[in-house]
Amino acid sequence: MKSRNILKHTTMLAGLAFATALVGGSLGNVSAQQTAPGDVKKHETTPGGQYQPSLDVLKEQEMEQPGAKPGIPALTAEEFSTANKIYFERCAGCHGVLRKGATGKALTTDLTKELGFEYLRDFITYGSPAGMPNWGTSGDLSEAEIELMANYLLNEPAQPPEFGMKEMRETWNVIVPVDKRPTRQLNSLNLDNIFSVTLRDTGEVALINGDTKEIVTIIKTGYAVHISRLSASGRYLFAIGRDAKIDLIDLWMDPPAKVAEIKIGSEARSVETSKMEGWEDKYAIGGAYWPPQYVIMDGETLEPQKIVSTRGMVYDTQEFHPEPRVASIVASHYRPEFVVNIKETGQILLVDYSDIKNLKVTTIEAERFLHDGGFDSSGRYFLVAANARNRIAIVDTKEGKLVGVIESGGATPHPGRGANIVHPKFGPVWVTSHLGDETVSLIGTDPEGHRDHAWKVVQKLSGQGGGSLFVKSHPKSGNLYVDTPLNPDAEISSSVAVFKIGDLEKDNPEYTVLPIGEWSGIAEGVKRVVQGEFNKDGDEIWFSVWNGKEQESALVVVDDKTLKLKTVIKDKRLITPTGKFNVYNTRNDVY
Amino acid sequence: MKSRNILKHTTMLAGLAFATALVGGSLGNVSAQQTAPGDVKKHETTPGGQYQPSLDVLKEQEMEQPGAKPGIPALTAEEFSTANKIYFERCAGCHGVLRKGATGKALTTDLTKELGFEYLRDFITYGSPAGMPNWGTSGDLSEAEIELMANYLLNEPAQPPEFGMKEMRETWNVIVPVDKRPTRQLNSLNLDNIFSVTLRDTGEVALINGDTKEIVTIIKTGYAVHISRLSASGRYLFAIGRDAKIDLIDLWMDPPAKVAEIKIGSEARSVETSKMEGWEDKYAIGGAYWPPQYVIMDGETLEPQKIVSTRGMVYDTQEFHPEPRVASIVASHYRPEFVVNIKETGQILLVDYSDIKNLKVTTIEAERFLHDGGFDSSGRYFLVAANARNRIAIVDTKEGKLVGVIESGGATPHPGRGANIVHPKFGPVWVTSHLGDETVSLIGTDPEGHRDHAWKVVQKLSGQGGGSLFVKSHPKSGNLYVDTPLNPDAEISSSVAVFKIGDLEKDNPEYTVLPIGEWSGIAEGVKRVVQGEFNKDGDEIWFSVWNGKEQESALVVVDDKTLKLKTVIKDKRLITPTGKFNVYNTRNDVY
Repeated sequence: MKSRNILKHTTMLAGLAFATALVGGSLGNVSAQQTAPGDVKKHETTPGGQYQPSLDVLKEQEMEQPGAKPGIPALTAEEFSTANKIYFERCAGCHGVLRKGATGKALTTDLTKELGFEYLRDFITYGSPAGMPNWGTSGDLSEAEIELMANYLLNEPAQPPEFGMKEMRETWNVIVPVDKRPTRQLNSLNLDNIFSVTLRDTGEVALINGDTKEIVTIIKTGYAVHISRLSASGRYLFAIGRDAKIDLIDLWMDPPAKVAEIKIGSEARSVETSKMEGWEDKYAIGGAYWPPQYVIMDGETLEPQKIVSTRGMVYDTQEFHPEPRVASIVASHYRPEFVVNIKETGQILLVDYSDIKNLKVTTIEAERFLHDGGFDSSGRYFLVAANARNRIAIVDTKEGKLVGVIESGGATPHPGRGANIVHPKFGPVWVTSHLGDETVSLIGTDPEGHRDHAWKVVQKLSGQGGGSLFVKSHPKSGNLYVDTPLNPDAEISSSVAVFKIGDLEKDNPEYTVLPIGEWSGIAEGVKRVVQGEFNKDGDEIWFSVWNGKEQESALVVVDDKTLKLKTVIKDKRLITPTGKFNVYNTRNDVY
Repeated sequence: MKSRNILKHTTMLAGLAFATALVGGSLGNVSAQQTAPGDVKKHETTPGGQYQPSLDVLKEQEMEQPGAKPGIPALTAEEFSTANKIYFERCAGCHGVLRKGATGKALTTDLTKELGFEYLRDFITYGSPAGMPNWGTSGDLSEAEIELMANYLLNEPAQPPEFGMKEMRETWNVIVPVDKRPTRQLNSLNLDNIFSVTLRDTGEVALINGDTKEIVTIIKTGYAVHISRLSASGRYLFAIGRDAKIDLIDLWMDPPAKVAEIKIGSEARSVETSKMEGWEDKYAIGGAYWPPQYVIMDGETLEPQKIVSTRGMVYDTQEFHPEPRVASIVASHYRPEFVVNIKETGQILLVDYSDIKNLKVTTIEAERFLHDGGFDSSGRYFLVAANARNRIAIVDTKEGKLVGVIESGGATPHPGRGANIVHPKFGPVWVTSHLGDETVSLIGTDPEGHRDHAWKVVQKLSGQGGGSLFVKSHPKSGNLYVDTPLNPDAEISSSVAVFKIGDLEKDNPEYTVLPIGEWSGIAEGVKRVVQGEFNKDGDEIWFSVWNGKEQESALVVVDDKTLKLKTVIKDKRLITPTGKFNVYNTRNDVY
């Protein structure tokens, strides 16, 4: 009964193009295929993935010798600025702000001049089978824009400015001083069941009442807001945009409102808050892509206190890297430490915030291209994907040491924070799906109770296909949800696979497909279904039905017990919803 | 009776010019004044310095608007290479390898083009009262060389290449593998009383038998060899040159010989070895000026194991610095840590070498322009000069915290490793002299026994004048020696002041002048007397009489009890001797 779980290389790479498009802020123009509402399908999977693309799936193949080699084309200031913006939005994610290459190839002028204008133009237009998106034929960039970009690449890169304490303080703004803030919760919201929903393309978060499903308020944040995080107490919500703007929201106000803001660079992804007992709400930390640095801030005001550069040596080759970007950050529950993951150098930093004037940092050699990850169910072990290396690095945050680096079992793991379930046979396992194929990997996380299975991929499930971004479960749930929003097949991208945890000891565990996109009742668009998030009680799971900026989107709430549609949240203000962060689950690392 | 202890600003700055000349490898052309041999003078000093120049004495004053502003002059590859060499040898020490400024002003092309060729040429020729040496009128650079340098400065700086693991391993050479080395000491030397003498301008160290005063062997090292350090056991001697070459010498061989070598960058100053119990001889560490980084190596082979970049934020302004150079490094006796001092960012790093795969580094905010320093007599506290800030930073290496940063009491402290004496009134104190004036500062170091005096300048002595590089004493000595090799007065630069420790409780402690230069019997040259070093037993002290490369130099040995000349060591191979490192005292931090 297996279907659609063998994804061809080309379609998978189209999925990666979408991943880039997602980063770049565009949904592309894939048309949706309609299926009948309520059509729940059963599928069987085989354990173990059939398809294994090359390890460097995100890297472009060697470029061939080009045709013409003109000189360096002159660009007007306006053209350069336009090209810079496009580069920043579309290209920098893979090729690096300095064009020195990252998951994509280097684009320094010594290389681009060899390639020449026409080659660059065609490459940008048609993409490559090794992962370069087809910006022209997808319709994302116009012919004129592509020609501009080809010319731009023949010019020296504009190094973005440094962004130190002076610059940060200039952007720092306390809207409501601490002594002017409420001393008790002024609204009557059940704060622990609030969902902070990323409205990606409007640069806002919507706070939604998880009990009533009503929008409490919508708050302006940074451009292309990325994630929300909660302070340990649950009072303060932090949102960070890709433009490195951090907004601090006080949930005690009526309605909850922004009380402070800051920019920590020109590009960023991650924010976290101190969670250790005795340090609740004291500090926040932001991690920047550019400049490559992190900053420790006051948890109540965002006042920047300590900036630390991440420029340094790659963990294995020990060569200097000028742009080691800060990927995910989590807060340890065992020590007063932030766990900071550095992408290009492959180092995991344990940043001790107990004395920031005498800052103690443990630098753990892990693996390159560290991206996102989460804790195991005990909160002691942190598992993080080295995505372009198809590996998972595991850190013991209690002992402050690397446990190991293992193969993820699939192509380009993308766990988000992952999901923790208790496997009927292998005990506590942490789960990741993959961007590059249909593999869902289960990794044993219980060295005490299940020693033989700890830190091994104990089981591989086959989901609907590649293009998965997030898996999700909850301690009270019997289900494991796997989304596939970046799969090029519209039916797959608009639905979710659900595995019964109790069935996982079977040889070929089946999954159920929930046609969330259909359930939303939205007619137009690709209706990408992304990122399941449980409510506080763990009895319902929310999915975003994410359409283009000009199209209708929605949130679909599913009953976890019955897997039936519970409700659809629609509002014209809900534009491009993606990530959702339940206050209780986020602040307690329940996932 | 006070004489010559008030140094005028201009002469002091001439002294600084000599300091730069010293860094650059030249002695200038100051003529020596002859005095009668054996002429021992008595001088009185007043406590407290009379002269206090501005804090930023090492910085040039604001440059004025220049005359001509030509375009960028073209240089041939050969000219550029010559200019690069001169810049590296003469200018980089103050202006930075990247010309972004350090203790000297920035010389980036946006600034130099404003100034123009003629201004630059004249500035290089005549120097400035704010510390720029007069390279032309001193005769150090020819007119043609100065014109070349002015043109060179109008061109973009050549950024020297990175030097990572690949490059280091290419220079790494084990001459005698560990299993081919002696298993016992093959020579009959009293190793603990060997002196390793830096022969600066030949790029060699002379190993001299401290008992017989005979040269044991002369070993080729890096260019402009800087210092020697000993492994904890005393078997291995490490020498580092300004060209970042480290040579490892096995003192058990007969004669002692080089067993391994490596280059850790293109410019460096510091090397140290692991001293903690259980880690003896296990690791070495080298600190580089360029690239800004340090490297932990195997202590027996110099195999590079871990390279760490120091590029990062200045401790107070928290702005990114591209070239934070590694100044002095010492090894803690209380923890498995190296204490690494970063000049431009003003940070002191405690680098825990117990687990270099999970490297733990504590970054202590201290003060900019950290340079050299040493331990107090207990070995617990490390005191390091922030030279251009006229401050001393103090670190508790047992607790891993900053004790404080205090004013040094004079202009441009230059302690070397400093000197520890037991003051009759204030108990254990650590001593530093100053490059910029005659002040010799005594800082209390005994928070248990002399709490009120700890970490304060408890007394200021006035020495012969500015231009002092090193002070010296020994636990068994009753004397404190203060050199003044960079004083522009030839009589002062060729003699040494000696304070009786027992007399320090007097209001105006006298000092005795030892005319070491005269005692050497050398007729020609400036006979700069530099760096007293005690023998193992602490009953005699050695001074270098340091002349030009083409002139005769010598070592003069003084009886510590009588302050009489004991012997003069002369040998045509002893060319430009400067630092001397007694094996026992160096490995045990006795100073």
